[in-house]
Amino acid sequence: MKPVKVGLLGLGTVGTGVVRLVEGHQEDLQNGSGSPIVIEKILVQNKSKERDINVSLDKLTEDPWEIVKDPAIDVIVEVMGGVQQTKEYLLEALSLGKQVVTANKDLMALHGPELLEMAKRHGCDVMYEASVAGGIPIIRTLIDGFSSDRITKIMGIVNGTTNYIMTKMSQEAAAYDDVLKEAQQLGYAESDPTSDVEGLDAARKMTILATLGFRTNVDLSDVSTEGISKVTKEDILYAKRLGYEVKLLGIAERQDDLISISVQPTMVKNTHPIASVNGVFNAVYVYGEAVGETMFYGPGAGELPTATSVVADLVAVVKNLNLGVSGKNSTVAYKEKKLKTDDQISSKYFMLLHVADRAGVLAQITQIFAKYEVSLDAVLQQPNPANPAAEIIIITHDASKASVGKVLEAFQELDVIFNVKSVYRVEG
Amino acid sequence: MKPVKVGLLGLGTVGTGVVRLVEGHQEDLQNGSGSPIVIEKILVQNKSKERDINVSLDKLTEDPWEIVKDPAIDVIVEVMGGVQQTKEYLLEALSLGKQVVTANKDLMALHGPELLEMAKRHGCDVMYEASVAGGIPIIRTLIDGFSSDRITKIMGIVNGTTNYIMTKMSQEAAAYDDVLKEAQQLGYAESDPTSDVEGLDAARKMTILATLGFRTNVDLSDVSTEGISKVTKEDILYAKRLGYEVKLLGIAERQDDLISISVQPTMVKNTHPIASVNGVFNAVYVYGEAVGETMFYGPGAGELPTATSVVADLVAVVKNLNLGVSGKNSTVAYKEKKLKTDDQISSKYFMLLHVADRAGVLAQITQIFAKYEVSLDAVLQQPNPANPAAEIIIITHDASKASVGKVLEAFQELDVIFNVKSVYRVEG
Repeated sequence: MKPVKVGLLGLGTVGTGVVRLVEGHQEDLQNGSGSPIVIEKILVQNKSKERDINVSLDKLTEDPWEIVKDPAIDVIVEVMGGVQQTKEYLLEALSLGKQVVTANKDLMALHGPELLEMAKRHGCDVMYEASVAGGIPIIRTLIDGFSSDRITKIMGIVNGTTNYIMTKMSQEAAAYDDVLKEAQQLGYAESDPTSDVEGLDAARKMTILATLGFRTNVDLSDVSTEGISKVTKEDILYAKRLGYEVKLLGIAERQDDLISISVQPTMVKNTHPIASVNGVFNAVYVYGEAVGETMFYGPGAGELPTATSVVADLVAVVKNLNLGVSGKNSTVAYKEKKLKTDDQISSKYFMLLHVADRAGVLAQITQIFAKYEVSLDAVLQQPNPANPAAEIIIITHDASKASVGKVLEAFQELDVIFNVKSVYRVEG
Repeated sequence: MKPVKVGLLGLGTVGTGVVRLVEGHQEDLQNGSGSPIVIEKILVQNKSKERDINVSLDKLTEDPWEIVKDPAIDVIVEVMGGVQQTKEYLLEALSLGKQVVTANKDLMALHGPELLEMAKRHGCDVMYEASVAGGIPIIRTLIDGFSSDRITKIMGIVNGTTNYIMTKMSQEAAAYDDVLKEAQQLGYAESDPTSDVEGLDAARKMTILATLGFRTNVDLSDVSTEGISKVTKEDILYAKRLGYEVKLLGIAERQDDLISISVQPTMVKNTHPIASVNGVFNAVYVYGEAVGETMFYGPGAGELPTATSVVADLVAVVKNLNLGVSGKNSTVAYKEKKLKTDDQISSKYFMLLHVADRAGVLAQITQIFAKYEVSLDAVLQQPNPANPAAEIIIITHDASKASVGKVLEAFQELDVIFNVKSVYRVEG
């Protein structure tokens, strides 16, 4: 059978993994896809750079268009990253009838619908399994595995850096800044960690997962996003004492046809399967009306895990090409998007308040909760020896985000409350 | 678009779930598959039986051939169970060019290759996601998600009944017989529980998983199988003290091209993700050379969870039918099967021995381990107040099954050993 020719955009960590897998697993790939797969050309920034991997120099090019416009190339595998420029390459490739595999979460979160639309118009596939949760095949699970079900909740630990930080803070009672520094030294966090620690990376991945899970086009701006940089070791200690772990969770929910998507540090009951996902591992918990609770666990990043997903997509794309059904398998986000308002978004909350240590304070506080119809699951008041203020911990029953916002606003008017030390969403 | 017509064989628990999902999720199914899906006829044992579900009486038939031979029916969904007779229906359906979806693990474990061969000859699909681990889409994960990787280990909690029993015994320090009785009362165990508790059900599922994971046709007789009926609450207590849980695990391993498959009660280190899978839940842990550690968790049985997998297969089958690629997606078990000998199967072991409580006993025992080149990780000797015998607990390093067999044989000759109380494989 005629080999299928691949143009690889990028030869960094993941690109190197892709070359290794395509060369090392040729027999399996051929069996799965129906034809030999050959990496024909590779885009690099600098042809003369020393590399860990042995690739013939005449495959390398520094000109992306040389690959994108090469009529001999059937499939573009994009592992270079970047958004604007990369989008142009891929749109051009699709318009020329080439198949596309990408690991680019930023691109798919921001311009996924545009790329998929272009692919459809030209009868091409765009696959992007590696864009979320590295080696976990969660995208095909949402598309194929649960095609028969109505997914009502997706909760993801989809950022390894922040999960490493949360795990270390929990296991070693360590402070955020110290663990972040350590993560940077180990290469788990970037020197500018903003995108990870402020939840932006997770928000992009949740945009992709929610779009697939709810069959509607979610925008990145629909995701209410809060990072972990304000999580203290004291918060984690309180959480643990109450039987919770603090995790940066992406949460996408659907009720009837209303959806909401958020990313925030969340207290998760330690009996929930996602609470024990530790270190740089990722996991996606999916709740379907029919199937109930499921969870998918694995490595969220790394050369070979991510390459596994890229090359699995490559096999699928080549199979479709050989069967003549490219562009005919793509799911459509066919439902109208209806976002929940803050009145409709509901969850439990944890609050830690520093309050005046005198009679009647708790009564004033609970009155405010009552006024906004937020009912309480647990209230714990304790003196704080280090502080003239007393500490009050409150866990609410399910309450709307709007009501909780009003409660917090009212607290600002209350002079017996010195400080709302922390507020967390609670799950499990 | 012309609706695709389905003949449903069986209207028990899962069949009822299939009807509910097909009727309730029509819009999603149509979007995923490309056409409306209609359940045209249903095989039942007794047409006049009262049912939980509202189905029009003229769809029901008591004659399987009326469905199998009906030229109007495009797809057979088999959820009736049974092996010999059922195989005949499905072979006939395939020979008539009908697509097949089945939830039947016994059938697929025993006659999978024959059915797949027949399907290939007639350009038909056979899909069987629901045959292993109910609602967890593990079969498509092995076929598509990891098509690019070499899987070297699959460990599964694939039988909910035994996992319920092991969990209860562990959490409540309860005896096997008591928990089994309770499981029977709750409907989690059959009145004749042999197939579950002796590991036969798990062995069938591991046959299917190993065939897919290793791309070679595994026979049920290749699976070395031991059940949980001899696990005592004392064993579990010891395990917990050492940081392990006891689980009935199916373990399929590959090293180079040599494979081994077994089902046995196994001590799993409590930090391993599969150790915390509790109750009737199932989980499949997959290790791939490139991807590393992954795990897939969810409900292993039940009306709607299992129906989710059946109907996801139905969507896939109908999609292929509409694209004209039925029978062209099937993976082939193309590798020659090479089973490991007992010399080549290696793992850690736990042993609990009752021995004479006098000097020199440990030396005699460790000499035997040394003779057969089994090295020890941990040895713990303790007096047993309830017994004239002392107890010795041994955990070995990795050792071959053959060597451990020889050690156990040699122990029978040793009069200072009263009793080899228990032996467990150790993982994690």
